[in-house]
Amino acid sequence: MENANRDSQIGMQLPNPHLANMTKDNLYHLGMSRTSHDLPALFGDVKFVCLGGSARRMENFAYFIGQELGVLSTNERPPNLASNSERFVLYKAGPVLSANHGIGVPSMLVVLHEILKMLHYAGSSEVTFIRIGTCGGIGVPPGSVIVSNAAVNGKLEHTYETVVLGKGIQRPINVDQELASEIHSCSRTEDPFSVILGKTYCTDDFFEGQARTGGAVCDINDGDEHRFLKQLDSEGVKNIEMESAGFFALCHKAGVKCGVVCVTFIDRLSTEDVPTDTDILSEWTQRPQILVARFIKKQLTNGV
Amino acid sequence: MENANRDSQIGMQLPNPHLANMTKDNLYHLGMSRTSHDLPALFGDVKFVCLGGSARRMENFAYFIGQELGVLSTNERPPNLASNSERFVLYKAGPVLSANHGIGVPSMLVVLHEILKMLHYAGSSEVTFIRIGTCGGIGVPPGSVIVSNAAVNGKLEHTYETVVLGKGIQRPINVDQELASEIHSCSRTEDPFSVILGKTYCTDDFFEGQARTGGAVCDINDGDEHRFLKQLDSEGVKNIEMESAGFFALCHKAGVKCGVVCVTFIDRLSTEDVPTDTDILSEWTQRPQILVARFIKKQLTNGV
Repeated sequence: MENANRDSQIGMQLPNPHLANMTKDNLYHLGMSRTSHDLPALFGDVKFVCLGGSARRMENFAYFIGQELGVLSTNERPPNLASNSERFVLYKAGPVLSANHGIGVPSMLVVLHEILKMLHYAGSSEVTFIRIGTCGGIGVPPGSVIVSNAAVNGKLEHTYETVVLGKGIQRPINVDQELASEIHSCSRTEDPFSVILGKTYCTDDFFEGQARTGGAVCDINDGDEHRFLKQLDSEGVKNIEMESAGFFALCHKAGVKCGVVCVTFIDRLSTEDVPTDTDILSEWTQRPQILVARFIKKQLTNGV
Repeated sequence: MENANRDSQIGMQLPNPHLANMTKDNLYHLGMSRTSHDLPALFGDVKFVCLGGSARRMENFAYFIGQELGVLSTNERPPNLASNSERFVLYKAGPVLSANHGIGVPSMLVVLHEILKMLHYAGSSEVTFIRIGTCGGIGVPPGSVIVSNAAVNGKLEHTYETVVLGKGIQRPINVDQELASEIHSCSRTEDPFSVILGKTYCTDDFFEGQARTGGAVCDINDGDEHRFLKQLDSEGVKNIEMESAGFFALCHKAGVKCGVVCVTFIDRLSTEDVPTDTDILSEWTQRPQILVARFIKKQLTNGV
């Protein structure tokens, strides 16, 4: 079965037969469990899970989407439902969850595994996962929003390696083209920013892994950096971040729809330094949130 | 030069010639830069950097070590020096920094690169880095403290792969045996917990990567899990966590001393579920902090 989550009658199914017997499952990194929380009552109606790196940003997104959907009153800040956890935050606004995933694939996988299980236990169905992130850009103006229509790992392969029992397993990085197009189509001509469909380069490091010469250690020179970034450009890469490959791979394996929408903070063909103007970065950070909010409203209006 | 950080006269040197020209370096994930902060005044006296996954835990450690060293008055909570950052926290108590690194090697590398550069710019010298973490154990009672005297990656190799310019580079996981022994020797017979020197298995995933059958997806059975954990046991692995391989590899490359000290929350030979009793976990969490505080006090007394 290509996608295990198509039957809305029985809720989200996951490809792990052990879950049927895990009546007391402790979702340790969310600070809740099947026995401590009434997961169906809390999360049974969830249709969208939005994830991003920073806890503060995802709290702000929960507030924003709550206002957009009219499910939170003015100035009502939703509570952190993972307040027992020291690792992650989790907010809910109507049918939308908003959580942080930290930096990098390993951190993101921890919270993604636990949210998938939480929604499985809750009996949620037809759930779409969207990563709302920040990234570096390649050949696009800073502040552009990239909707990933492909992703490659650090070695430019279309697979993500998961190590199980000490051995590497290559899993495909499958991107839902229909979902990417639907999100992309929510851009408007009056927007003061471009929304671009493109390939995402996913690395396990911010400095050496992204061909920066400004890390604590460096074995490459400026020419190496420039040639590599031009190579990425020539292969259609539009942005660089640190989670998409693992996110697409695990969501596909789990049978849930997912997309990745990131705003670029810099054009790596010009610089490797993130701007210091926090007002500008703050405004740019809202752009993928605005786009995803439009997408969610459209889906809900269409009766998803 | 095996270790670039041996000359206390000139401060911590790093193997990156580009840094000499980076007069405005923006340490983005710490929310500070060479121009916005007087780094020598703030951090020139730092001798120890303690890192751990959780922000709250590392705030508590800063308070604890500040009390132990007598550099903070009673009930004085040190301020978060990275308060402009949405990603990490950073506290200082006398010559000790305490920061969180999130979950997984990629997240840890981001903050480690930036702290290394920060201390290089500050002119700090003879700095020791210590990761104080939580982990799963192999064949040791839960609540034991493991001081790593070796570490292996997910494929049980003594190397950590960094991808640079799209190609994998294998870096050695070198563990400073003298430092590990010194930390281990700070245990006391009256301690209500064991302190054990042992090999650490470092994975990029908490569920599938650590042979758990309880993740959102799973392709292995209980027999596979048990056989693999017995294999780890037979190869001398005492604990499993998600940062040590990259931590040892980058610190070695950068030429700084480092150690990893973690408390086990479970014995994976018996269970894969983290206990839910937060009082017990909280007490256990303090154990590596107590050990590391003794080590730091001893070093400072010896005139490091």
